[in-house]
Amino acid sequence: MFFASDNAGPAHPRVMDALVAANQGYASGYGADAPMIEVRQMIRDIFEAPEAAVHLVATGTAANALTLATLSNPWEAIFCTPMAHIHEDECNAPEFYTGGAKLALVEAIDAKMTAPTLLAAIEREETRGVHGPQRGPVSITQATEKGTVYTTAELMALTDVARSFGLKTHLDGARFTNALVSLGCTPAEMTWKAGIDAVSFGGTKNGLIGVEACVFFDPAVSKQFELRRKRGAHLFSKHRYLSAQMHAYLTDDLWLNMARQANAACARLVQGLEQVEEVEIQFPPQSNLLFFSAPRSMHQRALQAGAVYYVTGGDPDSGPADERLTGRLVCDWSCDHGAIDRFIAHLRQ
Amino acid sequence: MFFASDNAGPAHPRVMDALVAANQGYASGYGADAPMIEVRQMIRDIFEAPEAAVHLVATGTAANALTLATLSNPWEAIFCTPMAHIHEDECNAPEFYTGGAKLALVEAIDAKMTAPTLLAAIEREETRGVHGPQRGPVSITQATEKGTVYTTAELMALTDVARSFGLKTHLDGARFTNALVSLGCTPAEMTWKAGIDAVSFGGTKNGLIGVEACVFFDPAVSKQFELRRKRGAHLFSKHRYLSAQMHAYLTDDLWLNMARQANAACARLVQGLEQVEEVEIQFPPQSNLLFFSAPRSMHQRALQAGAVYYVTGGDPDSGPADERLTGRLVCDWSCDHGAIDRFIAHLRQ
Amino acid sequence: MFFASDNAGPAHPRVMDALVAANQGYASGYGADAPMIEVRQMIRDIFEAPEAAVHLVATGTAANALTLATLSNPWEAIFCTPMAHIHEDECNAPEFYTGGAKLALVEAIDAKMTAPTLLAAIEREETRGVHGPQRGPVSITQATEKGTVYTTAELMALTDVARSFGLKTHLDGARFTNALVSLGCTPAEMTWKAGIDAVSFGGTKNGLIGVEACVFFDPAVSKQFELRRKRGAHLFSKHRYLSAQMHAYLTDDLWLNMARQANAACARLVQGLEQVEEVEIQFPPQSNLLFFSAPRSMHQRALQAGAVYYVTGGDPDSGPADERLTGRLVCDWSCDHGAIDRFIAHLRQ
Amino acid sequence: MFFASDNAGPAHPRVMDALVAANQGYASGYGADAPMIEVRQMIRDIFEAPEAAVHLVATGTAANALTLATLSNPWEAIFCTPMAHIHEDECNAPEFYTGGAKLALVEAIDAKMTAPTLLAAIEREETRGVHGPQRGPVSITQATEKGTVYTTAELMALTDVARSFGLKTHLDGARFTNALVSLGCTPAEMTWKAGIDAVSFGGTKNGLIGVEACVFFDPAVSKQFELRRKRGAHLFSKHRYLSAQMHAYLTDDLWLNMARQANAACARLVQGLEQVEEVEIQFPPQSNLLFFSAPRSMHQRALQAGAVYYVTGGDPDSGPADERLTGRLVCDWSCDHGAIDRFIAHLRQ
Repeated sequence: MFFASDNAGPAHPRVMDALVAANQGYASGYGADAPMIEVRQMIRDIFEAPEAAVHLVATGTAANALTLATLSNPWEAIFCTPMAHIHEDECNAPEFYTGGAKLALVEAIDAKMTAPTLLAAIEREETRGVHGPQRGPVSITQATEKGTVYTTAELMALTDVARSFGLKTHLDGARFTNALVSLGCTPAEMTWKAGIDAVSFGGTKNGLIGVEACVFFDPAVSKQFELRRKRGAHLFSKHRYLSAQMHAYLTDDLWLNMARQANAACARLVQGLEQVEEVEIQFPPQSNLLFFSAPRSMHQRALQAGAVYYVTGGDPDSGPADERLTGRLVCDWSCDHGAIDRFIAHLRQ
Repeated sequence: MFFASDNAGPAHPRVMDALVAANQGYASGYGADAPMIEVRQMIRDIFEAPEAAVHLVATGTAANALTLATLSNPWEAIFCTPMAHIHEDECNAPEFYTGGAKLALVEAIDAKMTAPTLLAAIEREETRGVHGPQRGPVSITQATEKGTVYTTAELMALTDVARSFGLKTHLDGARFTNALVSLGCTPAEMTWKAGIDAVSFGGTKNGLIGVEACVFFDPAVSKQFELRRKRGAHLFSKHRYLSAQMHAYLTDDLWLNMARQANAACARLVQGLEQVEEVEIQFPPQSNLLFFSAPRSMHQRALQAGAVYYVTGGDPDSGPADERLTGRLVCDWSCDHGAIDRFIAHLRQ
Repeated sequence: MFFASDNAGPAHPRVMDALVAANQGYASGYGADAPMIEVRQMIRDIFEAPEAAVHLVATGTAANALTLATLSNPWEAIFCTPMAHIHEDECNAPEFYTGGAKLALVEAIDAKMTAPTLLAAIEREETRGVHGPQRGPVSITQATEKGTVYTTAELMALTDVARSFGLKTHLDGARFTNALVSLGCTPAEMTWKAGIDAVSFGGTKNGLIGVEACVFFDPAVSKQFELRRKRGAHLFSKHRYLSAQMHAYLTDDLWLNMARQANAACARLVQGLEQVEEVEIQFPPQSNLLFFSAPRSMHQRALQAGAVYYVTGGDPDSGPADERLTGRLVCDWSCDHGAIDRFIAHLRQ
Repeated sequence: MFFASDNAGPAHPRVMDALVAANQGYASGYGADAPMIEVRQMIRDIFEAPEAAVHLVATGTAANALTLATLSNPWEAIFCTPMAHIHEDECNAPEFYTGGAKLALVEAIDAKMTAPTLLAAIEREETRGVHGPQRGPVSITQATEKGTVYTTAELMALTDVARSFGLKTHLDGARFTNALVSLGCTPAEMTWKAGIDAVSFGGTKNGLIGVEACVFFDPAVSKQFELRRKRGAHLFSKHRYLSAQMHAYLTDDLWLNMARQANAACARLVQGLEQVEEVEIQFPPQSNLLFFSAPRSMHQRALQAGAVYYVTGGDPDSGPADERLTGRLVCDWSCDHGAIDRFIAHLRQ
């Protein structure tokens, strides 16, 4: 009954096999390993983007911060929602990597910015010449931090707004594949065909040990990115172990299948929760995580039975039994259906 | 005949086994995994430093840059040799992480600063109030980038100079264990007993996939380091895979044995080279790498026979046959003695 | 009829006299001039703070950015209102000088944060360990960007909230003296007695050419500030010309008298506007600037008659005659009462 | 007998007159004042560069740091001599403003880099892909920190080397005019005709209160510079007082005449010193400052008689009477010939 995070479960055994297989003999380092050439091509193929710049890093925060730094200037504002990971959970890494850009918050509905709220935020950031921060890139999280997913039409509407001001767009795809299989579209449709300029294409939350690809559809920034990555200490000498993970990930649809499993587990949770009286699901659960509100007593029962997940809105251990607290449940590829059913049973008791 | 780098060989099989073993079930992330508790204790034990702050990162540049940033202020000068990795090979990562500190160069003999040259460099960096950069920490590489090793007495002499100005000292130990087994002393003797304040304790060049421990003998900076690491995007969500590597490394003397193997391979190279006419070894080879000068024709022979190593001082492929060029040979734990002997044979022909 | 800004008028003639008088012979530079010793003492006397660190810079943005950098760490969030000058009008200078701190916005009523909105903002910035930005200093503008003034009780309530989280508070006093004479309290009452830790004590908007004093009630940070100032290129070699301005400012109540004149001019504007039908004053005008809403036609009349001020909410030149637009009127010490009366007459027609 | 610095003397009375004259009525701020339009044109005329971007700041360090930041990337090395002001006397301001670029030192003869030493430094900064810092702009000080002056042929040789690597060149002209009148050439000949891309055109050391112009011959970077200046808190709200100074400076050859006076005073010092036995002039004195070595006893005599200047190499007050110490003598426009003669007389006794 572990639902605390999708970065707490094991990597897929095929990823480990690939690591072990990669551990033979000598290999050029720093991204010049042979498997990286294949990985780059695989990602270009998947995105139908034969020219794209593709580079690997080991953490999602590095992917986001380096990509945004590449797309922005230090005197700019980067537009994102108040719950964006880059705003809430990266300890000012974007500000650090950009050299002091500001994050300007865009009102969100179900954790998604909309064309009107983005427009309002951009217009509000009027620069008055050199006085205010200049308008910079837009960063969109797909799937969002609340488990919702932008449709491709919604993405297109956002990038239209951005482009009308000459601004670039970045997709924080820490849960890229969960969104992709939820939408049933192609990576191209979810990115450059929808006007996206650069993607953090996440693997860590979806069954890898720690690899994210930074994908730029305009390869002109590739060298700059590489310099930023090295300067940020994110270029791995033994890079083959990143390549190997990503290679396994993209082979035989492993990435898609793991995301499907995670989403299916989440759907089973939703189904179960919908049948528990007094439980209320808070955002449309469209990928592999959900938020639900329930009385404290119900959370207590689940937690005491061994369920592991985050509760916000109050201390689950003390307070009125009927006060409603929010739980977050996240599923990864390895999430056990039996555990889900037991969890639901504990809630219903 | 691969001698290009000690970060191009495979990780030790026991490291891979540990990774696979770690890949079971759920584990808390971000450094809160159970194995990290053990790893921290193992490192404290090894260093005889029960209070030391110990944190893991995945690259040597991250270890150096984050540690130096923790020890310095942006308006300071960090003292290092002209061939220091932090100066030559980190694309300004130290400048980035410190927020713009300057690296002040200390004259080196055999790639080692000496008490007099360090003193001269510190005195030259007279601040004239707030006008010049202020004096900051001293960074010492052990073993050095040229394969030489400071004795503990030499380290002590350097830290004495630093301390007389109130300056901290950092040990860049990317090849810590190669130096340690070369000296035959204890980690404590090579660090805090010699006056060192913080260490980049490297594993990546010595048989790991990519893990370095940052060790601070004054734990007061621990929280600050953690915030810098997170802000630098170097905190791994799936941290257990770093812990597992370091755990295997420190178990049953694996770290020491791998360094001994690497140093022994280098010693065998030295022995062989000494018997090749016209070859001249350039720095006292005291760890796992060496530099030698030889005529171009000799390099050509070796390279054409399939040897892989860096040559500087000219193009090995074209130019006068008798022009002397410098080769760098680096051995890791997996270095094959047969290959060494073949290499020597090619040189001698 | 110039009401566009309080930094567009002339310096007071006594300030110019002081500059000319200072222009004799040689003087030590970089803050070591003799008049600076007197200025420092005068400011300590005025603030009843015999130990305070006092340093001069030439721009308000420098005063704010350097002071906040001194009070914060790069991984922190600085709390301010959405209309704070540091947020809206400094082109990310605070982010630059702090090394990438984030500005976290506090809901404002009449451009003033309140104890509950500050508390809510601080609580919202929950750090979850090292993941989120850490809580940093609170920056309060007095008088505010909308012309309102915090009472000392209100300031105390804010600093109480800040202190309960261990946070420092900064007062952006670009219009310090306008607020002071409005409240009729002492500088000490408006700052350290109300819990404030550091002040940007502005002179530029109140009759100087360009001087602000940065005042820290805890002098321990004085040297750090000096290094930040030099590194920021804000230490003047010919510092005596800054000292001379500030000296004249603080002599014979010139600073107080100029602020009184500016506030009196603003009060006269308020009185006049209150008698113009259809005009609505938008924030309680408590210092030397005010915002008023009026139909476009009325703005057009005034502007065509030669009035100079900023209009927001729409293009004053085109659109429905009865659409309401907002005008901002700012008075400095030199503001002419005749001009005020003419301006009112134009509005009334 | 004040020879400590050229930023310790008074501004020229005509500069003060201009300031007072500028202090009338309202003026647009932030560089939009009417006199700035004239100043920009005057500087373009002087440089025969009708398209040049021209902006004012108040300190020399700001001029250098902002200009270099505009010409470089954070992952680059900026080439300068070991005695460059940007390296020795700006407390890491260039590193701060560039976001962490490195200063790479170029060997100097008489404080001047030469084409071969520059070439050697650039070649030494081999980047090895993304590992080392990338090669960035070259910064040349004219006149140098030791009082020597590059000929236009020497400048051209340097910029040829830079351009052969695709690198830009910056002229630190804190003493631009002293060099100019020493060479007797035109500003264009000393800058863009010699291949220079950007200039810190100093006024502060040559009779102004505090104004430097940043001149870019490629105006494409103008907006970027303006954003950097604002973000650096160096954009003056009451900008007219900077413009007024520069306007007076460039009117009726005041700038040239003041530099001629300063250089003439220095020449008189040289003449005098050459006739003092045991005195040795250390660098060819080609502008308005000189270094001389003399026995301690001689320095003591002069200092006790009231001369003010910097002595290095030992404590002038204690030590062997015949130990040789170095004195630095700097002349500004106001330097009194009588004082010079008295100073020489004291040395000779």
